[in-house]
Amino acid sequence: MSKVRFDISVSLDGYVAGPDPDPEAPLGQGGEQLHEWVLVTRSWRESHGMDGGETGPDDDVMAEMIAGVGATVMGRKMFDGGEGPWGDPPSFGWWGEDPPFHRPVFLVTSHPRDTVEMSGGTTFTFVTEGVEAAIEQAKAAAGEQDVHIAGGASVINQALAAGLVDQAEVHVVPVFLGGGARLFDNLGTPPPGLEIDRVAASPAVTHLRYRVTR
Amino acid sequence: MSKVRFDISVSLDGYVAGPDPDPEAPLGQGGEQLHEWVLVTRSWRESHGMDGGETGPDDDVMAEMIAGVGATVMGRKMFDGGEGPWGDPPSFGWWGEDPPFHRPVFLVTSHPRDTVEMSGGTTFTFVTEGVEAAIEQAKAAAGEQDVHIAGGASVINQALAAGLVDQAEVHVVPVFLGGGARLFDNLGTPPPGLEIDRVAASPAVTHLRYRVTR
Repeated sequence: MSKVRFDISVSLDGYVAGPDPDPEAPLGQGGEQLHEWVLVTRSWRESHGMDGGETGPDDDVMAEMIAGVGATVMGRKMFDGGEGPWGDPPSFGWWGEDPPFHRPVFLVTSHPRDTVEMSGGTTFTFVTEGVEAAIEQAKAAAGEQDVHIAGGASVINQALAAGLVDQAEVHVVPVFLGGGARLFDNLGTPPPGLEIDRVAASPAVTHLRYRVTR
Repeated sequence: MSKVRFDISVSLDGYVAGPDPDPEAPLGQGGEQLHEWVLVTRSWRESHGMDGGETGPDDDVMAEMIAGVGATVMGRKMFDGGEGPWGDPPSFGWWGEDPPFHRPVFLVTSHPRDTVEMSGGTTFTFVTEGVEAAIEQAKAAAGEQDVHIAGGASVINQALAAGLVDQAEVHVVPVFLGGGARLFDNLGTPPPGLEIDRVAASPAVTHLRYRVTR
């Protein structure tokens, strides 16, 4: 059955980005360490049109996450990476002209604009009615496939608080960031329930997957 | 070689105790859920003079943690559980007359008092010169065996920030507490480094053990 799910890399002290982001360090100081394990997996590289990469537990997890996703939901900050206004045709910052999604992407934003079709099957649809509306549209687009919430933390937290998430995966990276953006704030009372679904481990990162109950 | 180590149970949102502690809920609202996995293990029950209990991955981890500990370091709040002044002879709140340690325990406190010998080999020594002094005394008492920092979060964080910890184990419990006491605040700059040492998992909890590098 179609699921709404997210996964996110987090430091052992619970941050999804480091402190004091700047143009040189858009993920905050030290934040890039959270994603090093991703960039070396064969599955991630393949999905981004690159050769090579490592196999093993982390690659298995990554392949599992990529498989069966019919639509993506993303927050504004993750989408534009803090970019200014876009040209016409737009460049869309770090996603490039041929974004790695190859599927419909629904952006949660306060700025309405027309849907944009990119190369390679990616469409960007701008949803101004909030996370719930974005997930609803993504579910319709995904059909039998899953909806993946790509982040950031704010969109994930809103979806969790609204009881819209079926599966959560947290990649715990062995690093202390000492500050930055927290995951899982303001989830409401009572907060969602969790059941452990699967644990996978490598020397680089531990992958904790949960079923979310309401 | 003798190690300084700690282990602590933490919610998926990074709390080691729930919000709004009161006499009915000394670990905060919902905080008792963090320790349910402990109370059912055979090793923990045996160390507390009780029969029965479950075997399996959680019990294996608990047995490993109990083994080879020569001395314990503990913070004041964890020690007295918010109790008022003690009688003479003291009752020491929830630890009882025959505490489950059966070894020297060094309490980090601002209130000096004489060392107390309890039944069953436990001694309580009150250290007023801070965490570093308490760990130093515990190491001397432990000899070839390990020093275990029992908690709470404040003592653990101080020991980590001072570069005094060799091994950290975090038991991630599948629950959101939504508030309470955070672990791993104020670890200094740069924070300590981490290397994954061992991951163990059960349907109840995931055990992440790390080597701490300085």
